[in-house]
Amino acid sequence: MRDERKRMSRPVVSHHTTSDSFDNSEFDFISRIKQRAEAARASKTDGLVHGIGDDAAVLVGRNGRDSVITADLLVEDIDFRRTSPPFDIGYKALAVSLSDIAAMGARPLWTLLSLGLPQDIWDTPFATSISEGFLSAAREFGVTLIGGDVSRTPERIVLDSIVIGETRRGRAVLRSRARAGDHIFVTGTLGAAAAGLKLLERANHLRTRAARTRLISGLEELTRRQTHPTPRVECGALLGEGRLASAMIDLSDGLSSDLAHLCERSGVGALIQASRIPVAPLLKQADATNSSQVMRALKDDALNLALHGGEDFELLFTVRPRDAVRLPKRLGGVRLTRIGKVTDSSEGIKLSRNGRTEILQPSGFDHFKHAR
Amino acid sequence: MRDERKRMSRPVVSHHTTSDSFDNSEFDFISRIKQRAEAARASKTDGLVHGIGDDAAVLVGRNGRDSVITADLLVEDIDFRRTSPPFDIGYKALAVSLSDIAAMGARPLWTLLSLGLPQDIWDTPFATSISEGFLSAAREFGVTLIGGDVSRTPERIVLDSIVIGETRRGRAVLRSRARAGDHIFVTGTLGAAAAGLKLLERANHLRTRAARTRLISGLEELTRRQTHPTPRVECGALLGEGRLASAMIDLSDGLSSDLAHLCERSGVGALIQASRIPVAPLLKQADATNSSQVMRALKDDALNLALHGGEDFELLFTVRPRDAVRLPKRLGGVRLTRIGKVTDSSEGIKLSRNGRTEILQPSGFDHFKHAR
Repeated sequence: MRDERKRMSRPVVSHHTTSDSFDNSEFDFISRIKQRAEAARASKTDGLVHGIGDDAAVLVGRNGRDSVITADLLVEDIDFRRTSPPFDIGYKALAVSLSDIAAMGARPLWTLLSLGLPQDIWDTPFATSISEGFLSAAREFGVTLIGGDVSRTPERIVLDSIVIGETRRGRAVLRSRARAGDHIFVTGTLGAAAAGLKLLERANHLRTRAARTRLISGLEELTRRQTHPTPRVECGALLGEGRLASAMIDLSDGLSSDLAHLCERSGVGALIQASRIPVAPLLKQADATNSSQVMRALKDDALNLALHGGEDFELLFTVRPRDAVRLPKRLGGVRLTRIGKVTDSSEGIKLSRNGRTEILQPSGFDHFKHAR
Repeated sequence: MRDERKRMSRPVVSHHTTSDSFDNSEFDFISRIKQRAEAARASKTDGLVHGIGDDAAVLVGRNGRDSVITADLLVEDIDFRRTSPPFDIGYKALAVSLSDIAAMGARPLWTLLSLGLPQDIWDTPFATSISEGFLSAAREFGVTLIGGDVSRTPERIVLDSIVIGETRRGRAVLRSRARAGDHIFVTGTLGAAAAGLKLLERANHLRTRAARTRLISGLEELTRRQTHPTPRVECGALLGEGRLASAMIDLSDGLSSDLAHLCERSGVGALIQASRIPVAPLLKQADATNSSQVMRALKDDALNLALHGGEDFELLFTVRPRDAVRLPKRLGGVRLTRIGKVTDSSEGIKLSRNGRTEILQPSGFDHFKHAR
């Protein structure tokens, strides 16, 4: 889920920053579609647990389970560039949908891929590598490709990745169930994907391959966090199965934006401790291996990248105080960090930094518009 | 399901003629994806009834039911043109997926839409009208929009429509269950959609609006069969629920091509009676209202349009001899016509015309490449 208003104002876009799930965004066009969808909803909604407005829809499933389903559309030159490794383009298309399923506390099982390919790469190793990346992610996370569509396109590569997962009946974790007093956690570390995007965009503006290589040298792990994200599949499923998370969302837009989405849906506020935010170590260590000007700027900006940078695909979730005690430090192979508390909605969403408390504006990738 | 080899050779394409479900096509790229999907299939396929290779995938569903799911990708200037009414673009995107669900003998319930819109139509009445067309089809056929994605694109409109339906457990009608001796039926009438496409393509080449209007005058019903197809939702569901159809496919590529797909999957041959093919009356009557040269040519070509023209979205299905007697003349508001018989695979696929029997080559829309 990403905030459409901001993104539409950006002159250049990239790396999965303009796709927008049908969510709680106030953007006119999407909200109008949603209103119409409500009006068009058949009276027969038997079997529907939760429709538009979360990371995935929830349907009554088989044998005491619920099914969750999500679709993510990735378009060349909007969400990725053809300069990315084709394997990563395919891998990431599935990863972003797996992240949505994880954010529902569900376990992914099936996938469908609708793939649009232009004539110039049809039946080339480039196209094959896209499908291999997709299937590699499927293998890695135990999902089976059961269908989809392949079409030609006039110029651009298009991928729509659909994932179906399952939870035990009634166990899907929604965005809307956070309560004042809950603790706020994130998985992993933040900011690396946005820094990686910024590096790649800078590199794309350089004239020679040598200059591009020099810029990125030693920082491949950072750019990889952008092009090859790891969805928190096992952690998300365990948070759902163990009834540990009261509300959850995945970090696609960035902490400040996605926290705002969760708070809006739950009707709550939040207080985040800046000092507790797990800034990606890659950002802090970066100038040990690469002392370019852009990298120094990224390092100086590390907290902002962690607060507002998107596409880390970590999980942001809330935990009732009584459940926080049984929450392990690591879950599904990833570290869990408590970064704040849910407050009353009248408190708004705030950040405590250096002893001062300020309003935390959701700013997402907008931050980079000027820096680029 | 459409045959990719032919379509890739066409210099200009339009109106949903190059999308290709992951199916039984021999086209290299798709079959290679399929092979890889097989190799990548998780050992855990508990819950999967039928994967890639039919109009939709089949999963074990709730309460003694199975779930069927399909996705169809439509891309501007490949599957439709922006000169089509935007309402129809949205309507057709859902209609083609509903047709896939009908061809499984299933009843559609839920839909997700991934919609890619270029900046120049974002938040315009044109874009709103696309979503209204989609939701109008949803209302008409009783399906509820439960999710999806909205993204910007650089230039072209993209729609990926996902539909989920249900059958009673084990009742999904596959392409692969036809047996020698079964009767072959089609719903409705054939050829109008292909004629409508041909008319629209001719009109697009005319310089003035007046000339375009003159060409199409009196033939709007024909072009509407192309831009606003009616999926056989109720008929398909009843064929499945009543266990009337032994095998089924929807007519997206054209009778000759889709029959070949069904026969290949079932390992059978077929003998079709040309005189029994229900050619669209619109084609026969057309020159009463419009005597343009192109229309006379279409009329002369009516049988070929019905045999090889695509996108009628009627259902082609086979019926065991013992069930044929209980098949009504009309089902779900549409006429059923027996056009031939399933034969042994050694017989191949043949057409009996004017007392002679010839091989029926699957030619799909290829027919129009030279005529255009």
